[in-house]
Amino acid sequence: METISSARPVASPTGVTAAAVSAVRPLGVDAALVTGGWWAHRQRRISEVSIPDGRRQLEEAGNLENFRVAAGASSAEIRGPVFADSDVYKWLEAAAWEYARQPDADLLDAQLEITRLIAAAQQDDGYVNTVIQVRGDRYRNPARDHEHYCAGHLFQAAVAQSRCTGRDELLDIATRFADHLVDTFGPGRRQDVDGHPVVEMGLVELFRQTGRRAYLDLAHYFVEARGHGLTTRYGGNATYLSDRVPVRAATTVEGHAVRAVYLTAGATDVAVETGDTELIETLGRQYAAMVESKQYVTGGLGARWEGEAFGDPYELPSDRAYAETCAGIGAAQWAWRMLLATGEARYADQIELLLYNAVMPGISLSGDEYFYVNTLHLREGSHADNERTAAGGRHRWFDCACCPPNVMRTVAQLGGYLATTSDAGLQLQQYTDSRITAELPGGEFTVAVSTRYPWDGNVRVVVETAPTGDVELALRVPAWAAGATVDGVPVAAGEYARARRTFQAGDEVVLELPFEASVISSHPRVDATRSSVALRLGPLVYAIEQADQPGVVLDELRVDPAAPITAHHRPELLGGVNVLSVPVRGSGGDLSATAIPYFAWANRGVAPMRVWIPTA
Amino acid sequence: METISSARPVASPTGVTAAAVSAVRPLGVDAALVTGGWWAHRQRRISEVSIPDGRRQLEEAGNLENFRVAAGASSAEIRGPVFADSDVYKWLEAAAWEYARQPDADLLDAQLEITRLIAAAQQDDGYVNTVIQVRGDRYRNPARDHEHYCAGHLFQAAVAQSRCTGRDELLDIATRFADHLVDTFGPGRRQDVDGHPVVEMGLVELFRQTGRRAYLDLAHYFVEARGHGLTTRYGGNATYLSDRVPVRAATTVEGHAVRAVYLTAGATDVAVETGDTELIETLGRQYAAMVESKQYVTGGLGARWEGEAFGDPYELPSDRAYAETCAGIGAAQWAWRMLLATGEARYADQIELLLYNAVMPGISLSGDEYFYVNTLHLREGSHADNERTAAGGRHRWFDCACCPPNVMRTVAQLGGYLATTSDAGLQLQQYTDSRITAELPGGEFTVAVSTRYPWDGNVRVVVETAPTGDVELALRVPAWAAGATVDGVPVAAGEYARARRTFQAGDEVVLELPFEASVISSHPRVDATRSSVALRLGPLVYAIEQADQPGVVLDELRVDPAAPITAHHRPELLGGVNVLSVPVRGSGGDLSATAIPYFAWANRGVAPMRVWIPTA
Repeated sequence: METISSARPVASPTGVTAAAVSAVRPLGVDAALVTGGWWAHRQRRISEVSIPDGRRQLEEAGNLENFRVAAGASSAEIRGPVFADSDVYKWLEAAAWEYARQPDADLLDAQLEITRLIAAAQQDDGYVNTVIQVRGDRYRNPARDHEHYCAGHLFQAAVAQSRCTGRDELLDIATRFADHLVDTFGPGRRQDVDGHPVVEMGLVELFRQTGRRAYLDLAHYFVEARGHGLTTRYGGNATYLSDRVPVRAATTVEGHAVRAVYLTAGATDVAVETGDTELIETLGRQYAAMVESKQYVTGGLGARWEGEAFGDPYELPSDRAYAETCAGIGAAQWAWRMLLATGEARYADQIELLLYNAVMPGISLSGDEYFYVNTLHLREGSHADNERTAAGGRHRWFDCACCPPNVMRTVAQLGGYLATTSDAGLQLQQYTDSRITAELPGGEFTVAVSTRYPWDGNVRVVVETAPTGDVELALRVPAWAAGATVDGVPVAAGEYARARRTFQAGDEVVLELPFEASVISSHPRVDATRSSVALRLGPLVYAIEQADQPGVVLDELRVDPAAPITAHHRPELLGGVNVLSVPVRGSGGDLSATAIPYFAWANRGVAPMRVWIPTA
Repeated sequence: METISSARPVASPTGVTAAAVSAVRPLGVDAALVTGGWWAHRQRRISEVSIPDGRRQLEEAGNLENFRVAAGASSAEIRGPVFADSDVYKWLEAAAWEYARQPDADLLDAQLEITRLIAAAQQDDGYVNTVIQVRGDRYRNPARDHEHYCAGHLFQAAVAQSRCTGRDELLDIATRFADHLVDTFGPGRRQDVDGHPVVEMGLVELFRQTGRRAYLDLAHYFVEARGHGLTTRYGGNATYLSDRVPVRAATTVEGHAVRAVYLTAGATDVAVETGDTELIETLGRQYAAMVESKQYVTGGLGARWEGEAFGDPYELPSDRAYAETCAGIGAAQWAWRMLLATGEARYADQIELLLYNAVMPGISLSGDEYFYVNTLHLREGSHADNERTAAGGRHRWFDCACCPPNVMRTVAQLGGYLATTSDAGLQLQQYTDSRITAELPGGEFTVAVSTRYPWDGNVRVVVETAPTGDVELALRVPAWAAGATVDGVPVAAGEYARARRTFQAGDEVVLELPFEASVISSHPRVDATRSSVALRLGPLVYAIEQADQPGVVLDELRVDPAAPITAHHRPELLGGVNVLSVPVRGSGGDLSATAIPYFAWANRGVAPMRVWIPTA
């Protein structure tokens, strides 16, 4: 195999090779650390609660035992869905990122123990998939069986383990499997694509980590082979499986939401590494079309329960929003890759929107309960008819448990999303207490960020180490932050405020983002939220929940969008949140409704909730 | 078996025994005939196109061959879903009603030929179900396998064949099967209910036809046994299967819409025959709750694709309306039974609403293409991702072909819904050119109805034969017809206009229903159609369709609900319909949109359509 000559990238959450065509680059694994504030608190819960609990759940649900069965070390029945292995891989990836954040011998042992289970199950030719091995029907139905999907998550976990712990045991398993895939699929070999994308991202990252070009080539093949109905030969629904329209020809997203955004994220990886600027532009138009007509105000994606799918343009019901937690994560991964490719602030805005309002609603404040589906409206009288129904409340785990470990890995790797770098300087993308280091041509550039974000908009950046010569410090000004200033000077929203100069240690730059509650109307073609408004303060979308207005019928409330909405911080509520006081009219007359951040809903039992409130 | 002494009822579409507690009774099979007008035209299409084509489809899809396989006369593979037999039974029922309408030797031969197929497949103990017989797993999973469901449709078909053709071959098959069920299920025997109700209606009708009380008792058992989660022992979802809440304790409908209304219809049959007035009252409250918060303006039922189910109260999206054709039919069956039980005009109003606007949209004007799902809104840019998606247009048949023969039997038996009788007199329930005869204590009462309904509201009733003494002629005044008159005298809408006197042959009564277009707003709790209006003229709900406004973006139109809407008849359009001219504002300025009856949409190709139009 050809090995490219560039240095092996050690980066988080994605590497980008030196040969790649990207506007900005990720930082190294240890180069951006959350040091405090809201995200630090959420990372602590992931570390202390979610990851240990997740391991227990994987043991209880049989996912780990499956590997013992496949290895011949257990005679138990294989349990769980065909993609059961992938939940183990996502947990391993979460554990790896968590280890990078905070090295811990026990956590490393746990990873290596599970890695040994996988090694024992792996077959001589590199293939590993516990369910399929036991069933004995390898590659029988690519539309259904998720074999590449599981492989893709293995590759991502392996790269994370290598980057974060320095151990290559999982990487060895991954490359053996990847080599087998290279020998089996692609031009001149078997022409097939998996029903569920993710192997594309996994292969490109494995290429970035190992330098083996064949992995990128196979990812490239998988991206280009889609959209020609290969899966329909196995009875697959081409729309559902992102196989109806070639990625290059698509004008928007459609079908199963997670599949769709995993595919476009992988396609972006391929485009960046192959320098395919035309494909990047196409993907940018698709992203914009998704935002325009297929994304909820929360960032949530997927309007249909049937097929966990995107709806038609402007089909965005609140009550039946699917907005799968995994779809929010997948979109954030896509946005991150588009940000690297283009350097455009709108993608960092998307990551902010998605993480706060589409991903974090999927995990309880306690860190051990999850939503798979994130509704924007729960009515009185609703009852749970399956494990995904909001009326049933959050769940400890699911029969289809894709979301919980997906949240874990996302939060554990959050530091990686905070900033990017380029030869010109450093770009701060997300705001939380943090310390960030970029290696620039003139030396190390380290800044400490302090802020109460997402509870106020004051962001103080202090230079700790400065490189020699002029460099650029770019601060993202979110599109919602009209009226922002840097050091008192007005700056435009929706782009970067850039300061280019020679910095000194101790220099301070202060970004001030206006934190005023605002009302949002939906596009006039969205029928489901016509004559209604949603509420926003800073990066957060708000919701009214029954717990804060006992005895009031939420569905009867009407709001005057011109009435003044006030905000204040409630440190005792829901771990400390800003709440909004919203003048409304109900059947009992005028009252002031309290709105809480949407991510915090359903942490005090489950009762009616609305994100969109009808206007008077 | 006990045989009750009352005369064997010969009635359409349901019999009611003399011992039953009902306010009004059905007429005999030949006692109410459509003689002309719109319904006659539709019946002709069913007769000339749908029924012959349906038989071909059942042969092509394997449903008929399955009986040959089960009888050992064919070695073909069993094809179709587990409930494949039921489509044959519904077709047989349609053919029977059609035969009553218009006796035809070939049609009788066709029925008897298929009946012989069924007889050959029937097992010695009376059981017959082709899929299960070949699979060899009788009663293995009542939650899933539809064995009673198929039996119920067999019973309905058998009663229809007996009543309409006088031939009892199918009835013999049915009673043997029913006897087997009586021996197998119920108190002291196997305690189970089928995942899909309909056997309750079938058993009661079989009781009515044969007088065998055990059939009623078993139906009674099946109704009472539901709602205690019996199906969950087989992995069934109790909500979906109408098995979460006992019928007697329910306050509304939930779960799979067809299952829910078939069950309540069967429960109504049981309540009427057992004199259970408390259950009738409970069912009446459930019906009212359904109308209040779970029924579309079209009468359509089922807001969710997921599980083909009722949503939460007020969850009524237009774009994702499921509104399965079969659910409209099931609701009409329930309404008919509630009408018999109570004699309340609101149930006849429901039948009118349902037949015109929830059932007939499910079949093309040509009579050979169907909608399974009846959306109320199709957007530009939608594409078909499965056979039920509106964007794919109407289909000749479906893999799950429950709806086509269900429409056939409903239209073929339409005469039966036109009128009811009681000792007091005759009640005219539905208006079309027709001849109706009731047997009253004072003799035969025959009236001829002539009208251009549903195109105007003038209904002329001429007495052809009058009984001796005073009798009551009751004319339903639909709730939408405020301002109606009988012979020039104002009468109240939403109830019956009753004339009690001694009629003479040649007497004439003229009902005049105001036919003025009106706008309808939805309940303020319905989010999906907030600030929008639907259009109605007479019994018909209207829609705007792309074909009538080329080049206009329907989703951008806004209507001023106070602007005058005019109506006129277009004999050349869609078989002759009233259209509405609606002043609207679009992106290109003011224009007059043309609205057509909703039932007629998607007969000129498939393109965007809206029932609800946003207000300016």
